[in-house]
Amino acid sequence: MFFASDNAGPVHPQIMDRVLRANDGFALPYGNDPIMDEVRAAVRQTFEAPDAAVYLVPTGTAANALALATYCQPWNTIFCAKTSHIQVDECNAPEFFAGGAKLILVGEAEKMSPDTLRAAIEMQDPTDVSMAQRGPVSITQVTERGTVHSLDELQALNAVAKDYGLPVHLDGARFSNAAVALGCSAAEMTWKAGVDVVSFGGTKNGCMGVEAVVFFDPSKAWEFELRRKRGAHLFSKHRYLSAQMAAYLEDDLWRDIAQLANDNAAYLAQGLTERGITFLHKVEANMLYPLIPRAVHRRLDTAGARYERHAGLEGDADALISARLVCDWSISREDIDRFLSHF
Amino acid sequence: MFFASDNAGPVHPQIMDRVLRANDGFALPYGNDPIMDEVRAAVRQTFEAPDAAVYLVPTGTAANALALATYCQPWNTIFCAKTSHIQVDECNAPEFFAGGAKLILVGEAEKMSPDTLRAAIEMQDPTDVSMAQRGPVSITQVTERGTVHSLDELQALNAVAKDYGLPVHLDGARFSNAAVALGCSAAEMTWKAGVDVVSFGGTKNGCMGVEAVVFFDPSKAWEFELRRKRGAHLFSKHRYLSAQMAAYLEDDLWRDIAQLANDNAAYLAQGLTERGITFLHKVEANMLYPLIPRAVHRRLDTAGARYERHAGLEGDADALISARLVCDWSISREDIDRFLSHF
Amino acid sequence: MFFASDNAGPVHPQIMDRVLRANDGFALPYGNDPIMDEVRAAVRQTFEAPDAAVYLVPTGTAANALALATYCQPWNTIFCAKTSHIQVDECNAPEFFAGGAKLILVGEAEKMSPDTLRAAIEMQDPTDVSMAQRGPVSITQVTERGTVHSLDELQALNAVAKDYGLPVHLDGARFSNAAVALGCSAAEMTWKAGVDVVSFGGTKNGCMGVEAVVFFDPSKAWEFELRRKRGAHLFSKHRYLSAQMAAYLEDDLWRDIAQLANDNAAYLAQGLTERGITFLHKVEANMLYPLIPRAVHRRLDTAGARYERHAGLEGDADALISARLVCDWSISREDIDRFLSHF
Amino acid sequence: MFFASDNAGPVHPQIMDRVLRANDGFALPYGNDPIMDEVRAAVRQTFEAPDAAVYLVPTGTAANALALATYCQPWNTIFCAKTSHIQVDECNAPEFFAGGAKLILVGEAEKMSPDTLRAAIEMQDPTDVSMAQRGPVSITQVTERGTVHSLDELQALNAVAKDYGLPVHLDGARFSNAAVALGCSAAEMTWKAGVDVVSFGGTKNGCMGVEAVVFFDPSKAWEFELRRKRGAHLFSKHRYLSAQMAAYLEDDLWRDIAQLANDNAAYLAQGLTERGITFLHKVEANMLYPLIPRAVHRRLDTAGARYERHAGLEGDADALISARLVCDWSISREDIDRFLSHF
Repeated sequence: MFFASDNAGPVHPQIMDRVLRANDGFALPYGNDPIMDEVRAAVRQTFEAPDAAVYLVPTGTAANALALATYCQPWNTIFCAKTSHIQVDECNAPEFFAGGAKLILVGEAEKMSPDTLRAAIEMQDPTDVSMAQRGPVSITQVTERGTVHSLDELQALNAVAKDYGLPVHLDGARFSNAAVALGCSAAEMTWKAGVDVVSFGGTKNGCMGVEAVVFFDPSKAWEFELRRKRGAHLFSKHRYLSAQMAAYLEDDLWRDIAQLANDNAAYLAQGLTERGITFLHKVEANMLYPLIPRAVHRRLDTAGARYERHAGLEGDADALISARLVCDWSISREDIDRFLSHF
Repeated sequence: MFFASDNAGPVHPQIMDRVLRANDGFALPYGNDPIMDEVRAAVRQTFEAPDAAVYLVPTGTAANALALATYCQPWNTIFCAKTSHIQVDECNAPEFFAGGAKLILVGEAEKMSPDTLRAAIEMQDPTDVSMAQRGPVSITQVTERGTVHSLDELQALNAVAKDYGLPVHLDGARFSNAAVALGCSAAEMTWKAGVDVVSFGGTKNGCMGVEAVVFFDPSKAWEFELRRKRGAHLFSKHRYLSAQMAAYLEDDLWRDIAQLANDNAAYLAQGLTERGITFLHKVEANMLYPLIPRAVHRRLDTAGARYERHAGLEGDADALISARLVCDWSISREDIDRFLSHF
Repeated sequence: MFFASDNAGPVHPQIMDRVLRANDGFALPYGNDPIMDEVRAAVRQTFEAPDAAVYLVPTGTAANALALATYCQPWNTIFCAKTSHIQVDECNAPEFFAGGAKLILVGEAEKMSPDTLRAAIEMQDPTDVSMAQRGPVSITQVTERGTVHSLDELQALNAVAKDYGLPVHLDGARFSNAAVALGCSAAEMTWKAGVDVVSFGGTKNGCMGVEAVVFFDPSKAWEFELRRKRGAHLFSKHRYLSAQMAAYLEDDLWRDIAQLANDNAAYLAQGLTERGITFLHKVEANMLYPLIPRAVHRRLDTAGARYERHAGLEGDADALISARLVCDWSISREDIDRFLSHF
Repeated sequence: MFFASDNAGPVHPQIMDRVLRANDGFALPYGNDPIMDEVRAAVRQTFEAPDAAVYLVPTGTAANALALATYCQPWNTIFCAKTSHIQVDECNAPEFFAGGAKLILVGEAEKMSPDTLRAAIEMQDPTDVSMAQRGPVSITQVTERGTVHSLDELQALNAVAKDYGLPVHLDGARFSNAAVALGCSAAEMTWKAGVDVVSFGGTKNGCMGVEAVVFFDPSKAWEFELRRKRGAHLFSKHRYLSAQMAAYLEDDLWRDIAQLANDNAAYLAQGLTERGITFLHKVEANMLYPLIPRAVHRRLDTAGARYERHAGLEGDADALISARLVCDWSISREDIDRFLSHF
């Protein structure tokens, strides 16, 4: 009953198998392995972006921080939602990689709106040398509260960014879960909606540790390569990153895995709803924010369930305590049923 | 005939096997996996250092840059040999992670001497606010020219550092090759010789991508953890790093693999010597710097041999052109013999 | 009729005179001039802090950024009010000097409250390596809206900081105006209220360009000196900074000048009030935020008055447009009367 | 008898007078003062560069670090002579402002040669992502040993830089002393010789604390302005910087002051030579490196002479100890004669 995160499950067997098969003889290091050629082609096909520059890094924080830094001067701002991973969960990595840039928090929840974004941009007067200058907009899809921006929402945010000539980064740690939820293509959720660079996550969706950074405009490619090396994120035995991503993209495995995770979440959400549980945020991908009576939390804790709980076990048994449950692709229906049985 | 680097061969089967076995069910992320407990114990035992703080990162540059930064203020100098990886091959990663510290190159070759180190330290007057302040000493073992510091040499360098109260970092990307060459223990080559923190390399010696950073004084442990996260080098699915290192340490596999590589190098060196080839640097571990007539280079090139050659194929056929050959553990005697057959 | 800022008026004659008198013969550079000895003694006496470490820098941004960096690791947060100069007006200088630290905006206005500060600190879980770690609290006195924290307010904020072991910085660009407004001593507004380091402003209060950074705990003194040099803020001909500060402190000239400015503001505020003007923020020092009909703005503009106006001159003549007026010590009553005559 | 540095003498009376005259009424802050318009025009005329972008900062380290950073990515190298101020005397400020760039020391003395520069540039392979990438060349004129690059030498170095498309920075802390020594114009020593940006020093040559940064290509102007503000080097009461520079440029006062300093040095050098003293470096501007018997050092010390001495007073009385003597414009012939009387 592990619902603590989607970063704790096993590697999908097809991905692990491809890693194993890659382990033969010598391969040129630093991204010059032949599997990376395959990955480059597959990413470009997946994103319908024949000119895209494609790079692999091992962590989501590296993908975000390096992608943003490439579009951000140290005296710039990065516009993002209040709950963004880059703001809350990366220990100042974006500031570090961007040389001391400033994150500007937009809105009061997990999504920016076009109006709050526009207002935040307007606050930074670009003619005033005393003010940090307007920099990239970073959107998180799936959001940090498990909701998904519709394509219209993405386009509307990106239209605001474009009004001011600002580049757009998509933090797609759960890109696949969102694409599956929306039933849209990778292209529709990125460059067709105005995104300039995406952190295309693999780690949370069945990979071992790999994220692709995809630039739809390749003019920043060499700068990114230098930043990646300087950030110590260029793998010598790169083929083991390549192999993961190659398997992930083959026959749209990334969508299949995400579908499993989202289906698990939907099944769990339905079970909880049937048991009278309500949610702080709509369940749209693979994360749930249910309000659970403390007494149930106690039973779940005793039974060994793992998840984020936003208050302690001591106190009023009837009090509703919010929790975060994340469904991995690999969690079994038996586990979910077992979890539900404690309600 | 791949002698270009030891970062291009396959993962050792025992290590890959352990990665596979780790791929079962859920494991706590971010270094809280149970295999990491095993690794921590094994590193402490290997280094005879029961209090050591032990961390895993995916690349050698990350190990070096993070370890040094932890012992280095931005206004400090880092003393290192002229050929150091941190100076030549890391695209300013040490400077980046250390917030703009300055590398001071000591001596004229791949080793510092106690005298050149002392002179370099003396140049930085610690009472002069205009000068960068004295910071850590970084020693590379095996050196970047394939030679190995003796334990006496290490102790002598470290004694100089200690005279000035400076911490010592060992860049041990090829730590195992050196330990095997010296026939000494991990402890003898580190804290017993005065080293404070070591980058204990796995990647170049049969792992997929993992290095341990070992602090013999654990007081910097939490700072390192924060630096690792901020540098985007904290793996969520950390068990796959742990598994590599666990297998690497089990029954001293790290020594066995290094012995294979060093033996291959010795075999190759003997073959070359028998063919009248001389070397720019003594062959003491798994790297060779032979002087090879251009005509032979041409034959090797045609035959598909891969290695670093320090001049082009055009020109005087008899001219001696230096090369760098690195022996991986996995290269076969057949390959070496085939290589030699072109001389 | 110059009300645009207090950074645009002339140097007070007593200060300029002291600069002139300093211009004789040779003086040791880099803060070793004898006038700096005098300054050090005078600051310690003024602040009743015999052990304080005292440094001079030329700009308020340098004072703030260097003082904060000295108390801030790159992975830390800096807690400050939403309108803080360090957030809005320093082009990411605090982030730059602190190596990429993150500013956390507390509350919705120009002051933090103990509750909003406590809540913001609580958000940063110090056991979570993914989160930026709690760092210094920075309070602006006079605030950026011209209001003044009472001593009780300062103490209450600092008590919260101390509950969490966090250092407190006071941005005192208008320290003198606040001290005079509160009728309190320099010590009461700083270390007696829990402040650890203060940017004691001179530039906005009659100096040419000098701010003192005063550390009540001198243990960070040498680090600050290195940071100041590395930030290129150590003056070689330091005596000209010293001379300004010496004159500024002599016979409490700093209080006299601030009193002039505050009196000018009170006189202007009274005149405006008598003319029916209301204010967005209470006038407590030398800044005013009146709501002025657009028609009056037009007349003032034509008459050459200089001040910040928060909307354009086109539009409804009766609309109330907010403005910021700052009174310098040197502005004349004639100028103020002339300004008022347009209402 | 103050020969310790040219940063310890008084401000030239014409410059101080201009500062005084600037102290009247209000002036727009942050470089928008009318005197700055005058300065901009005067710098452009002096340098025969009608399009130059011109900025003022208070210290030489600020001028160098900001100018270099503007032409330097964090993953770049800066090529400079071994004795450069930016390497030895700025406490890692260049690395700080350039985000962790690396200084590459060229040659073995105070000048680079075209050959050593070319060799150093060639070492940095621009196609190798592991290597720091080639960045700006920084030349110090007057060198840190008191010698002066001839125009031919400057042109030859700059031609090498241009061969590789690298920008050239001139550290002109003693620009005026060099221009006077060479009898050349400001243009000849900069853009006509291939220099892209110059730190045009005022502080060491009779100003209070001001340096101009002059970009001959204005395309980096706005970036520099942002860097200056972010570095906390933008003065609010900027007119007092402007006034110094305005007086300095008026009627070529900068040349007159430098001529005084150089003449003093020549007079001192002749006196020393007549007394049998030899020099480590040729005396070409206002610095001398004489070899002085220890017994004479003792007498000078007793007499209160101030200068850098490169060994202690204890030891063999006849031993020749090198010293550095710097002549300020203001030192009197009486002082020099008094100094010489101890030989």
